Amino acid sequence: MPLKREALSQALMKIRHKKPVIHTMTNWVTAGEVANALQAIGARPIMAISKDEVTEIVANADGLVINLGTPDPLRIEAMLLAARQANTLGRPVILDPVGAGASNFRLEAIRTIFSQIRISIIRGNQAEIGILSEMGGKLRGIDADQGPSDLYRAAKILSQKTGSVVAISGQEDWVVKDKRKVVIENGHPLMSQITGTGCMLSAIMGAFAAVEQDPFIAAVGACVLFGLAGERASIGVKGPGTFKAALLDALFTLKPEEIEVGAKLKE
Amino acid sequence: MPLKREALSQALMKIRHKKPVIHTMTNWVTAGEVANALQAIGARPIMAISKDEVTEIVANADGLVINLGTPDPLRIEAMLLAARQANTLGRPVILDPVGAGASNFRLEAIRTIFSQIRISIIRGNQAEIGILSEMGGKLRGIDADQGPSDLYRAAKILSQKTGSVVAISGQEDWVVKDKRKVVIENGHPLMSQITGTGCMLSAIMGAFAAVEQDPFIAAVGACVLFGLAGERASIGVKGPGTFKAALLDALFTLKPEEIEVGAKLKE
Amino acid sequence: MPLKREALSQALMKIRHKKPVIHTMTNWVTAGEVANALQAIGARPIMAISKDEVTEIVANADGLVINLGTPDPLRIEAMLLAARQANTLGRPVILDPVGAGASNFRLEAIRTIFSQIRISIIRGNQAEIGILSEMGGKLRGIDADQGPSDLYRAAKILSQKTGSVVAISGQEDWVVKDKRKVVIENGHPLMSQITGTGCMLSAIMGAFAAVEQDPFIAAVGACVLFGLAGERASIGVKGPGTFKAALLDALFTLKPEEIEVGAKLKE
Repeated sequence: MPLKREALSQALMKIRHKKPVIHTMTNWVTAGEVANALQAIGARPIMAISKDEVTEIVANADGLVINLGTPDPLRIEAMLLAARQANTLGRPVILDPVGAGASNFRLEAIRTIFSQIRISIIRGNQAEIGILSEMGGKLRGIDADQGPSDLYRAAKILSQKTGSVVAISGQEDWVVKDKRKVVIENGHPLMSQITGTGCMLSAIMGAFAAVEQDPFIAAVGACVLFGLAGERASIGVKGPGTFKAALLDALFTLKPEEIEVGAKLKE
Repeated sequence: MPLKREALSQALMKIRHKKPVIHTMTNWVTAGEVANALQAIGARPIMAISKDEVTEIVANADGLVINLGTPDPLRIEAMLLAARQANTLGRPVILDPVGAGASNFRLEAIRTIFSQIRISIIRGNQAEIGILSEMGGKLRGIDADQGPSDLYRAAKILSQKTGSVVAISGQEDWVVKDKRKVVIENGHPLMSQITGTGCMLSAIMGAFAAVEQDPFIAAVGACVLFGLAGERASIGVKGPGTFKAALLDALFTLKPEEIEVGAKLKE
Repeated sequence: MPLKREALSQALMKIRHKKPVIHTMTNWVTAGEVANALQAIGARPIMAISKDEVTEIVANADGLVINLGTPDPLRIEAMLLAARQANTLGRPVILDPVGAGASNFRLEAIRTIFSQIRISIIRGNQAEIGILSEMGGKLRGIDADQGPSDLYRAAKILSQKTGSVVAISGQEDWVVKDKRKVVIENGHPLMSQITGTGCMLSAIMGAFAAVEQDPFIAAVGACVLFGLAGERASIGVKGPGTFKAALLDALFTLKPEEIEVGAKLKE
């Protein structure tokens, strides 16, 4: 059954209407950009990180995003607390395994998360997904240097192991769940020239998953919206600085019907 | 006695001349924007947060801003240390109770602050002020979902309880101290579409309070300057990204005499 | 032997080609801007700060930048771990002593760093360099209020004490090592009107030092590139907000041959 394009625009309409609160436990490098991206699409960010309050915060939120950039033991502990609470209350949990494999500490943290938490969507680059599926992958810093030789198989393995939708960002985006796969060809090269686009996309997935029951559709919707925003933002800008501003503008102004028309999907 | 408009422009002139150092203990989501806002109006930010240095930092600063976004126990402890020192040395203390009521942890922190610290200005949204005055209010994330039924009464109660000027941000801004009230009608809807405008305004109040003895005038001055900057920034922008840049430009270029002329005040 | 201008353009070419990974342990106020600046020139930032992973992260990086803004004891401990590892593995270490002298805590931290770590380049403002060389200097917040009476002598003393290249930012930039001195006259006044330009420059020095063996050339190259970017960015902007975006654009678009031609050097 092919994905219905109307489902994507309807999800964006629901975000604009319901203004879901997304508890985003993200790294401090890109937190401001992520909060602005959420706000631009119509969602409301809250970024509490202390274990003294995260269970209460997530209980009043519509979704949880946990992002492993700049991790430390206290942050991981608080993320686990919040994510368990989200699982208990049926809120979707999105995982962004930033730099998975950049250190044993991050790998261990992700293993603990996998053993304790049901995750709706895992969003990473090719190397991160390859490393987490144990199919091979290499990072340079936090960027993908090399993905697994068989990316589709890696995504399927990770999806089966975790029960999660797996979303892979790159020149084209892939969304995979078991044998289901959609390729999204929206986007622009400038998106990889600014810091935090991956983090922004993960948070946007949180907003989609908060209003759309099927996390597969939520992941595709987020990739399409973000990719289209990148395309539109690229017009007339002079580099990554003006692009960054234009990207927020585009996330704010894109209309649900434009998602439906502009989505470049391959199934 | 009606508020003198010259007092507002004189305060801005003093900021530009004295370049007050504002020790700003703010959340890590919007810290960069806040620092840039302070710098744009002519003040100098310093954002130390460790208890190992905050008393020394605040002693060399002209004002202290404490912002409860993304709080944790260490941060609260350091804020109390810095604020007690500021009280001892007679530096103004501004409190931004971000998400007051979003968790018991934040409410407890604010109660402790109220019991130990003399605060010059409390700046929050309608829900935060309603919750702190126990007159009712509801947050969605960190945004006001609903204020108290009688906002003026709530503000007066909070002002009397704390001895502070109470500034309330929203479509129009209110500044209240005991029975004194000024409504500021400057501003633009795009200001609520970017993250951190509340935090920026609180920090700007710190700069005004550092140069202007009457915290009531300081609060009104900050609301007018920031609201006018928002109005000016809205011209010709395409969304929240370009607006964010234009807002800093406007804070930088607005002249003291423009504050005096442009202020839309109701008493 | 005068500095060869080709060495500067060649260093930038190498950054664009090798895309060095720079482990940047920086303050959380300007981390996003710093990451974007690194990415704009062609380098790749990674900003890990937990002692549980920094030795592994720096081992896979090409250079380390430690920035003392918003310090706390855990952060300092992790910086020392990472820097010792960088020394062991022969990776260049850049130190940005933000607010040296703003507190005893920062001064002590810097003394500990000096006693344990070999630093390739120290980059600060006139007051910071004056204070570290014990030749006098005064900060207002984190800005230089007053430098030492004999800046050249202060720089030489600090350079001899530490074995490091000393880079001093201001209206003109100085790079000093023992008796060698180059003055760089590139730059624009708007650069001091936005937060984080010092932090950005230090990180850019990390990228230059990662590809250019002579840290003196690396420091000069970074000052020239950053100064030229500021000059170019200043054209047509309306204030610090639009300038900030244009600065990233300029860092991204400046070509190696433009560095060679545009460098304003005095020896």
